[in-house]
Amino acid sequence: MTDTANDPSSLFCATSNRRQFVQRSLAGALAAGTVAVGVLGACAAPESAPKGATTGIAAKAAGTMDSDHAGGTMAPNPSTTAASAQSAADAMDAMHEAGIKAFPAKTTGKGGQLLAPRVENGVKIYELTASEIQWQTDPKITVKAWAYNGMVPGPEIRVKEGDRVRVVIKNELPESTAIHFHGLELPNAMDGVPFITQPPVKPGASFTYEFVVPNSGSHMYHSHHNAAKQVGMGLLGAFIVEPRAPRAIEKVDVDYVMVLNDGFLGYTLNGKGFPATEPIVAKRGQKVRIRFMNEGMMIHPMHLHGMHMTVIDKDGWPQPAPWKCDTLNIAPGERWDVIVNCTNPGTWAFHCHILPHAESDHGMYGMVTALIVSA
Amino acid sequence: MTDTANDPSSLFCATSNRRQFVQRSLAGALAAGTVAVGVLGACAAPESAPKGATTGIAAKAAGTMDSDHAGGTMAPNPSTTAASAQSAADAMDAMHEAGIKAFPAKTTGKGGQLLAPRVENGVKIYELTASEIQWQTDPKITVKAWAYNGMVPGPEIRVKEGDRVRVVIKNELPESTAIHFHGLELPNAMDGVPFITQPPVKPGASFTYEFVVPNSGSHMYHSHHNAAKQVGMGLLGAFIVEPRAPRAIEKVDVDYVMVLNDGFLGYTLNGKGFPATEPIVAKRGQKVRIRFMNEGMMIHPMHLHGMHMTVIDKDGWPQPAPWKCDTLNIAPGERWDVIVNCTNPGTWAFHCHILPHAESDHGMYGMVTALIVSA
Amino acid sequence: MTDTANDPSSLFCATSNRRQFVQRSLAGALAAGTVAVGVLGACAAPESAPKGATTGIAAKAAGTMDSDHAGGTMAPNPSTTAASAQSAADAMDAMHEAGIKAFPAKTTGKGGQLLAPRVENGVKIYELTASEIQWQTDPKITVKAWAYNGMVPGPEIRVKEGDRVRVVIKNELPESTAIHFHGLELPNAMDGVPFITQPPVKPGASFTYEFVVPNSGSHMYHSHHNAAKQVGMGLLGAFIVEPRAPRAIEKVDVDYVMVLNDGFLGYTLNGKGFPATEPIVAKRGQKVRIRFMNEGMMIHPMHLHGMHMTVIDKDGWPQPAPWKCDTLNIAPGERWDVIVNCTNPGTWAFHCHILPHAESDHGMYGMVTALIVSA
Repeated sequence: MTDTANDPSSLFCATSNRRQFVQRSLAGALAAGTVAVGVLGACAAPESAPKGATTGIAAKAAGTMDSDHAGGTMAPNPSTTAASAQSAADAMDAMHEAGIKAFPAKTTGKGGQLLAPRVENGVKIYELTASEIQWQTDPKITVKAWAYNGMVPGPEIRVKEGDRVRVVIKNELPESTAIHFHGLELPNAMDGVPFITQPPVKPGASFTYEFVVPNSGSHMYHSHHNAAKQVGMGLLGAFIVEPRAPRAIEKVDVDYVMVLNDGFLGYTLNGKGFPATEPIVAKRGQKVRIRFMNEGMMIHPMHLHGMHMTVIDKDGWPQPAPWKCDTLNIAPGERWDVIVNCTNPGTWAFHCHILPHAESDHGMYGMVTALIVSA
Repeated sequence: MTDTANDPSSLFCATSNRRQFVQRSLAGALAAGTVAVGVLGACAAPESAPKGATTGIAAKAAGTMDSDHAGGTMAPNPSTTAASAQSAADAMDAMHEAGIKAFPAKTTGKGGQLLAPRVENGVKIYELTASEIQWQTDPKITVKAWAYNGMVPGPEIRVKEGDRVRVVIKNELPESTAIHFHGLELPNAMDGVPFITQPPVKPGASFTYEFVVPNSGSHMYHSHHNAAKQVGMGLLGAFIVEPRAPRAIEKVDVDYVMVLNDGFLGYTLNGKGFPATEPIVAKRGQKVRIRFMNEGMMIHPMHLHGMHMTVIDKDGWPQPAPWKCDTLNIAPGERWDVIVNCTNPGTWAFHCHILPHAESDHGMYGMVTALIVSA
Repeated sequence: MTDTANDPSSLFCATSNRRQFVQRSLAGALAAGTVAVGVLGACAAPESAPKGATTGIAAKAAGTMDSDHAGGTMAPNPSTTAASAQSAADAMDAMHEAGIKAFPAKTTGKGGQLLAPRVENGVKIYELTASEIQWQTDPKITVKAWAYNGMVPGPEIRVKEGDRVRVVIKNELPESTAIHFHGLELPNAMDGVPFITQPPVKPGASFTYEFVVPNSGSHMYHSHHNAAKQVGMGLLGAFIVEPRAPRAIEKVDVDYVMVLNDGFLGYTLNGKGFPATEPIVAKRGQKVRIRFMNEGMMIHPMHLHGMHMTVIDKDGWPQPAPWKCDTLNIAPGERWDVIVNCTNPGTWAFHCHILPHAESDHGMYGMVTALIVSA
């Protein structure tokens, strides 16, 4: 296995006793602006590991160790472990493997699709319809959701600082609703809080918001009426405002929005739970911007393996100086923007570090995805 | 409705089919240093919205749109929505509206009232009595609480760096107690931890703390004996230490303490749940300092609508550089000081963004208040 | 009592009606690099407090008050409080006192012991065996745990940036496992995620990781297979990487690792709950570095009494500028490094400020320890 275990292009390892090459199609799972890479998974099973592997000699003998790289070797069970324990472990591992092999699993529906505006007299017009839908969060789970334009998160709205924007919400839900543009410093009448800034938008009615986009950054839109339920059910989306004068640090190859949630749809990233989450894909040397947004009720400390994240913005406002971390705690309502310099090739787990949000004895699930850096 | 929906002085909108002007008295709900403003709420009901409103034309026709402002328009239900759904939505909305109309609701008791010291030989003497009381957290809920001087939070102690202070605690509770001055770097004997720095203060007994105030900032005092219960029941208060040499950024018009809690008294801001919470009131152009203090057991990411917050201090210590956000995560025991430049007139929702701490299907409750910026 | 209550060397106060001097041995409870101090606890009971103490006169009369110090005085109960209430309070206080007097309580097993590597051809070799053990978290509680080398946390691995390291994991558990080096920017094959970067390490099998340590800082190693269970059961440890060129601020007298946890072993600091936690001990004027690591599922805002903490690193990366606090919120997967300048002598409570993690009506327990600064 040493020749493949050290191969940074290895994505997934099989437990079978022969090499497996797993070609995966990531088509359809790529964010706007990401690049497609072939994903090749291969590694040997423990049974085929050379004896003496615990000393690392086998790895070195195979010529795969140098000062920049490293080797992992597996030694077989030298003792007679109870067959029943082995069999229980094998059964658990098979479930874990099945989940990972299924990633990225196909599901019906994709959240956060970019919404192209209709432009009239220089006004960018976005039409949103709130309605009840069935939403598939992973291959095994379909739940009732409340959604904008039939997807969770709702469609991504992406505008420029200073744009004039009109957002029309049509309410096809059985409850009244309203939209709050979380983070935008709008005139009060556009703030979307029923009985404070506007009447509720009744079932069957529509409401039109219109404003000049005042401040750039990673913002959100969501219901602000019966919101613990309505946002929990899926009435939320990203509202990205690109600055007129981007900073040098903002020039990235991949711009990725990651909406965290933990409501009625379960632990999700962009409306899906692992293995139906979407990998983030980049080439070695590229820069990825991740816009974390928490629309849930719990903190989610997101941990990236293999590379650090450089935090640049909080709630759309630049931090006084960028700072580095590998685990970033994102609280409900917060947005944090980070840059990842993709220097380290491989498939890197990327998950909430509240482990019960990411793994059970049936395998990884929920708030897990991967950053895949091609060599 | 367009002429009122765009009026930044609109506070609350009614759903009735005629204009309603709601004059509210904020007397008694104003923090020290705040200014009183007339609060005028008016907006049209959906039924009176012009046809064609979804295009925003009506709004513009009314002359309320310009490059700096924005307009919202409501379109009626063009279809025949089931009457029962409408009626259920109306019933829910009525509950939501009633809560907001009641804000700021009168309750018995006001927490955190400034305590004037008795001065003897240059020593500022504060007398606190811990006792069991009945405390009204909102118009419908009165609970048993343990309180300093009959209020939750206990009275605000506000001193200057370098002051000599004496705090006398008289224990009228059925349990022993003690006071810890959370954040003050006191001599060990004044730290208030029974069996480590002092004996417990038995029921009926008193204890005197005396010290020179060593460090400025937003601090707290609370029980440190059986504290999960005693602090949860209400034995807590703000201990503000003004610096000898204030920084320029500290020169504000309104200095507001906001104590967050989630113990036996429910989700509260300064001991009250919405609609009995107190609005923060300022004039356009003024600066408001908010001193967040979490005395609870959960995080509370506080979200301000309409304007950002500039974070200046953590636990009474200046941050290396101020930074901006609209949602600030405040963990138990933490204090965060922020400045809001009140540039945006209107009534702005201000709430914990863990939505179940702020809203149910019966309407907003708990950790919700408003920042009201008069034009 | 005034002469002892103001004595910063006082550690614990007894409630008995005569002075008690309690000599405690901290041997065995000292971290590597800490210094031993004699701990002397003495204070008078309320019954012996002078009359009139509420005015602080007694304290001053005893000559213990000056501009830098402070005094605390206890006044007896002047009224006839119900004997039953007194007796209930006394009973509760006795439980609280017993817990504190027991601190630091002896238990079997010590977690996080420094693991000396075997060195072969310049490679530092660490051998870890994962197995099921019985682990005593406090004198009254022994639980089943999964541990590396029979301790929770697993042994501390401490290396230098650029070292070549080999870690051999032998799996004696009934489940497969794997080790993730959380925070290290390793080649993908060494990342320890079964089916993504390697096969699972089956019961009875071994696996060898080998790499050049790429980045300095406070990192962790833990299971990344069925991790919600395996990490929760104890498969975790500190992986400290000393930099080749330490910063001036890193030159400290005491370097202390504090692993926070809340899994199947309960609320623990370094695998123990109060009173079996370990005090941190330093001399006045010394600097202590604390490396917080959260291996649990909940946030833990750690509050230090008496002195502030200066935050220098997040996840092993320097913050752009150090900043001060007294309560630091540490989320799962995060590491935060702080410096404490031990300017304030005494025994200082140091605990999670989610109070139910630290105290019940039976007294302090769980995530509580003390920083002891000798005069």
